[in-house]
Amino acid sequence: MTESKKKRRVVMKFGGTSVGTIERIKAVAQRVKREVEAGNEVAVVVSAMSGQTNQLVAWCSELSPMHDAREYDAVVASGEQVTCGLMAIALQEAGINARSWLGWQIPILTDDAHGKARITQIKTDDMEARLAQGQVAVVAGFQGLGSDNRVTTLGRGGSDTSAVALAAALKADRCDIFTDVDGVYTTDPRIVAKARKLDKITYEEMLEMASLGAKVLQIRSVEMAMKHRVRLQVLSSFEDKPGTMVVDEEEIMEQELVSGIAYSRDEAKITLLHVPDRPGIAAGIFGPLAEANINVDMIVQNISEGGDATDMTFTVSKGDFQRAKQVIEANKGELQYSGLIADSNVVKVSVIGVGMRSHAGIAQRMFKALAEKGINIQVISTSEIKISVLVAEEYTELAVRSLHTAYGLDAA
Amino acid sequence: MTESKKKRRVVMKFGGTSVGTIERIKAVAQRVKREVEAGNEVAVVVSAMSGQTNQLVAWCSELSPMHDAREYDAVVASGEQVTCGLMAIALQEAGINARSWLGWQIPILTDDAHGKARITQIKTDDMEARLAQGQVAVVAGFQGLGSDNRVTTLGRGGSDTSAVALAAALKADRCDIFTDVDGVYTTDPRIVAKARKLDKITYEEMLEMASLGAKVLQIRSVEMAMKHRVRLQVLSSFEDKPGTMVVDEEEIMEQELVSGIAYSRDEAKITLLHVPDRPGIAAGIFGPLAEANINVDMIVQNISEGGDATDMTFTVSKGDFQRAKQVIEANKGELQYSGLIADSNVVKVSVIGVGMRSHAGIAQRMFKALAEKGINIQVISTSEIKISVLVAEEYTELAVRSLHTAYGLDAA
Repeated sequence: MTESKKKRRVVMKFGGTSVGTIERIKAVAQRVKREVEAGNEVAVVVSAMSGQTNQLVAWCSELSPMHDAREYDAVVASGEQVTCGLMAIALQEAGINARSWLGWQIPILTDDAHGKARITQIKTDDMEARLAQGQVAVVAGFQGLGSDNRVTTLGRGGSDTSAVALAAALKADRCDIFTDVDGVYTTDPRIVAKARKLDKITYEEMLEMASLGAKVLQIRSVEMAMKHRVRLQVLSSFEDKPGTMVVDEEEIMEQELVSGIAYSRDEAKITLLHVPDRPGIAAGIFGPLAEANINVDMIVQNISEGGDATDMTFTVSKGDFQRAKQVIEANKGELQYSGLIADSNVVKVSVIGVGMRSHAGIAQRMFKALAEKGINIQVISTSEIKISVLVAEEYTELAVRSLHTAYGLDAA
Repeated sequence: MTESKKKRRVVMKFGGTSVGTIERIKAVAQRVKREVEAGNEVAVVVSAMSGQTNQLVAWCSELSPMHDAREYDAVVASGEQVTCGLMAIALQEAGINARSWLGWQIPILTDDAHGKARITQIKTDDMEARLAQGQVAVVAGFQGLGSDNRVTTLGRGGSDTSAVALAAALKADRCDIFTDVDGVYTTDPRIVAKARKLDKITYEEMLEMASLGAKVLQIRSVEMAMKHRVRLQVLSSFEDKPGTMVVDEEEIMEQELVSGIAYSRDEAKITLLHVPDRPGIAAGIFGPLAEANINVDMIVQNISEGGDATDMTFTVSKGDFQRAKQVIEANKGELQYSGLIADSNVVKVSVIGVGMRSHAGIAQRMFKALAEKGINIQVISTSEIKISVLVAEEYTELAVRSLHTAYGLDAA
């Protein structure tokens, strides 16, 4: 029984839609109040009211397309300043002892990369003393203080990162990210009606889910949570029920083989035919792409007919597709390929699960399920906890649904 | 010729309407640019974009009518933060080296009276070094840093005070207050078509003009300018021409006897008839009013008919009128007056000029001019540089016009 009476420390983060109106701010204050009345020490991290940041960014761009990032930071950080003052007032009105903290007041120290700064240190002595006295700390997300004594911001969606970093600094028992969905699902519920909300997911799996298009959490915040072992929870700010815990693998007793099926339509495929099969040819292809700041995802090299040459296939994001083709064609003389096949009507479908590390046959089940539906696999790539295949875009829904069933993820 | 080449230091302050839109901010940047190109060191103080502060205040009030002044300060100070970042961007876009300074960055130190803080010290070493290098300092008005390391604000219109305090700390040669009028006039141009813009006015006169209803400058900022001998200029942000200099008396070579005619309709008169003529009676009347936080302006005591009693007349602002009557009537038993006459249809008209200190007959000219128009004077009160009379409100325009002519203030 001692365990249940122990005072817990919780960081609660609310995004822009969760604090988008005065009414929503009042509702959030009630949510925070319940956490306080449960006997917890609470720090609240808030984003700007939805729409505010866009307005501030638009003003900066209207004045100058190439504006000074330090001034941009001073302007846009004001959005979170407003919300955190308002939230403190709302909490006080609800009878809760609370105060606001701006990034420079804590301080949340960052490097000087204005507009996309990285947190270097958070000094929490003063805040911890106040938490211990029962005061709720309301913290402006997204912002910090550079070594130049100027306001920095962490880049879009940075408030998730603020929350996780604060939770790490405070050694919080939990970091709750309140958003407009109620958790992480086995796959996109818009495609698979039988998608299930996961009670728990590992950091590694969440990273794969996030980077594959499940836009629930900022990738950076998940990386930071993993590094500092912060127990993250994704949950709805509109409903009062548990969400999905993102935790260390060891916390999940019976690990499913596969946790989810992700997909990304933001893929395009380029194949170079009959590239000379000699050392350095891969560097010759991918060097110029890297110089052009184009991210290459999947890469497959096959023996070509004949044997003295090879076919090279790779994928890039749809946004880089045209530019990637131009870069390759500009180097045609050196690369000596016989033809280039480009295709943006593709989708990447991935099966994710830490359980596959210790189990054979996971990939085989994927290939079989897709074959049964007559879906042709164009490219395969695997990592320790993920198998991705590229298929024609028209098969997206069929592939995701088939795999969801094949791995036993369908809700009863 | 050395004089003209000397580097001058100028503080330029722009109010809410002057920076109310992105277009206006760009126009202000051009105005600042001309000052820089004239070879001056320039600090710019900005208010929030017009309307922004009202929105922020409304949000605070909506959450809680009795909100924490520290949180209110954090919220409303964001308005000036936005403008000063945007102004720095606009200046940079115009090719001017510039950076923004928030209150806590300079810092502008204040006491801890949140919502109406007073500036205690401004540390300008870093800023002065940058000004000397040709960088324009863009400073958020209205805000400071309390000893509690929290944001403070200076009260409504506080940006004027920020500008004057900064000019004093920087030992600036001039503090230009850009507003939507082009200077200080001999009287209200809406009443007197022949009103003239003054080239110069003394601090003392400006204080009287300001407190009498010419709402060009915050009284507090004029007091501070007088104390620190800051040469103030009031001028238009919409036209490029000189405004009115507010300066030390010694700077004005040929002082006019009278500089202006002011009026205030915000007056109400209360007369107590047959008050016992004994020591302590004035204290008995004005003590309860002071306790009720009611400001009494003019006070006149006359011998009453009979001789054992006195009539006591005083004025209060129209906003305090009903409350003042209630306070007096609640004390009727002690005050023993025979009747109370209350009249809010009155106007206070004042003749202002430091020249009257050394010249006789100034008051006589006023009384004569009013008498010639058949205007009855109800109450008279005088100070060293001002004569005020209370007359029936319907005579406002006639009285002001007559006095403007009588003192030779009409434009040619």
